[in-house]
Amino acid sequence: MRIALYQCPPLPLDVSGNVHRLAQQASQAAAQGADLLVCPEMFLTGYNIGAAAAFSLAETRDGHSAGQVAAIAQAEGIAILYGYPERASDAQIYNAVQLIDAQGRSVCHYRKTHLYGELDKSMFAVGGDDFPVVELNGWRLGLLICYDLEFPENARRLALAGADLILVPTANMVPYDFIAEVTVRARAFENQCYVAYANYCGSEGDIHYCGLSSIAAPDGSRIAQAARDETLIIGTLDRQLMEDSRAINSYFKDRRPALYAGLSKG
Amino acid sequence: MRIALYQCPPLPLDVSGNVHRLAQQASQAAAQGADLLVCPEMFLTGYNIGAAAAFSLAETRDGHSAGQVAAIAQAEGIAILYGYPERASDAQIYNAVQLIDAQGRSVCHYRKTHLYGELDKSMFAVGGDDFPVVELNGWRLGLLICYDLEFPENARRLALAGADLILVPTANMVPYDFIAEVTVRARAFENQCYVAYANYCGSEGDIHYCGLSSIAAPDGSRIAQAARDETLIIGTLDRQLMEDSRAINSYFKDRRPALYAGLSKG
Repeated sequence: MRIALYQCPPLPLDVSGNVHRLAQQASQAAAQGADLLVCPEMFLTGYNIGAAAAFSLAETRDGHSAGQVAAIAQAEGIAILYGYPERASDAQIYNAVQLIDAQGRSVCHYRKTHLYGELDKSMFAVGGDDFPVVELNGWRLGLLICYDLEFPENARRLALAGADLILVPTANMVPYDFIAEVTVRARAFENQCYVAYANYCGSEGDIHYCGLSSIAAPDGSRIAQAARDETLIIGTLDRQLMEDSRAINSYFKDRRPALYAGLSKG
Repeated sequence: MRIALYQCPPLPLDVSGNVHRLAQQASQAAAQGADLLVCPEMFLTGYNIGAAAAFSLAETRDGHSAGQVAAIAQAEGIAILYGYPERASDAQIYNAVQLIDAQGRSVCHYRKTHLYGELDKSMFAVGGDDFPVVELNGWRLGLLICYDLEFPENARRLALAGADLILVPTANMVPYDFIAEVTVRARAFENQCYVAYANYCGSEGDIHYCGLSSIAAPDGSRIAQAARDETLIIGTLDRQLMEDSRAINSYFKDRRPALYAGLSKG
């Protein structure tokens, strides 16, 4: 499977503008043979937009924008993972991501479970105990959003559920380069899976984003790596590399779950 | 607290030779103001020595060599963490480390819980459910050995028990540079604690060690870093740095333990 990450400055409060550039990037990614396009956190609206805008721009998971993204995916023949503020049936607003397959069907949805500071907490309700793993193009994948990845427990949970690939739309800001440069690779290696981390670059209000989007492989290498500017990066997953790495790094055989009970206490 | 790591080639099967060079390094480290000297895994005997030698050289935790290390610690006024094959009261041999304080008292002991492949399993019984955290010079510390650190659950467990510092005697070999270069820093950052990783360099039988010993800080920086050759590196822990980093990276406030129950299943 070939995966494209779209690293871009946010286009805040302009949903139709974001849908428009999503269509452009999907076309470019598909032309380069990508099977999946991953966009940053809250791509449809921008991230640093405040609670009132997040509320007013929120949509249901099958709302108008979801239909537009599905149409783009189907037209270009490429799966799309995008972030957006979700208006849920419980009337809460969630920081959510949705995966649409190349036939335009919603195949996975996730609500951020680990909210980042007042920025997130002022806008969103916290996601529940739902970490789905689904199959796309023969690869089992799970979803996390930004800060979720910084907790080793979350990627571990997806890996234990069989994920070969963890997709992470993010809005990671200065001075947290460390996460993009070190943590992403550590999560891939310790879980013997791929991790695709799609970040913003540029600025949004008083936030400066790190860029440095990447796809890390199970052996800790990076198969795609962005710098600080707007770009579309693409990497191809290699099942043989993953199997070879897992044969050497047998963490899931060597774990001792009985020793880890303390992690879920308190 | 100032911590010295002694990175050296193993001196296999020569316990008195290892005690001798431990005395030399303790003297040098103390002269440079270090409060604690950390040696690699199985320092007293070498690591790649086979089951028969590990059995015949194993000692009790208060055996002859422990007395010699205690005498060195007391003479030089420096705490010492060293690895050795432990002959336990249950007649098993464990891959163990022992921390002796500057007064020559044993203050912490740990048996490797995650054995690495046939190399470890041919020599050692697996350690039990005992991850002590103790105080030394006002810092709370926990112990891990080599492969233990590669499982995020183990460092997390120590951090949850209050560790400010995790000491990791290791025997990390080529091609696992990734652990020394990336994982050590990731563990420090995700747990907002110091991690001191003391490795071998050089060769032992068919094993080539990575060197690259380091002390990683809670902000992900490295306050001491070895290359590939024999060396004594020293770093000073900074409580203000740790507190500043914890104020920004509030992982232990933001964790959601109820979501992590799956990690201890199976």
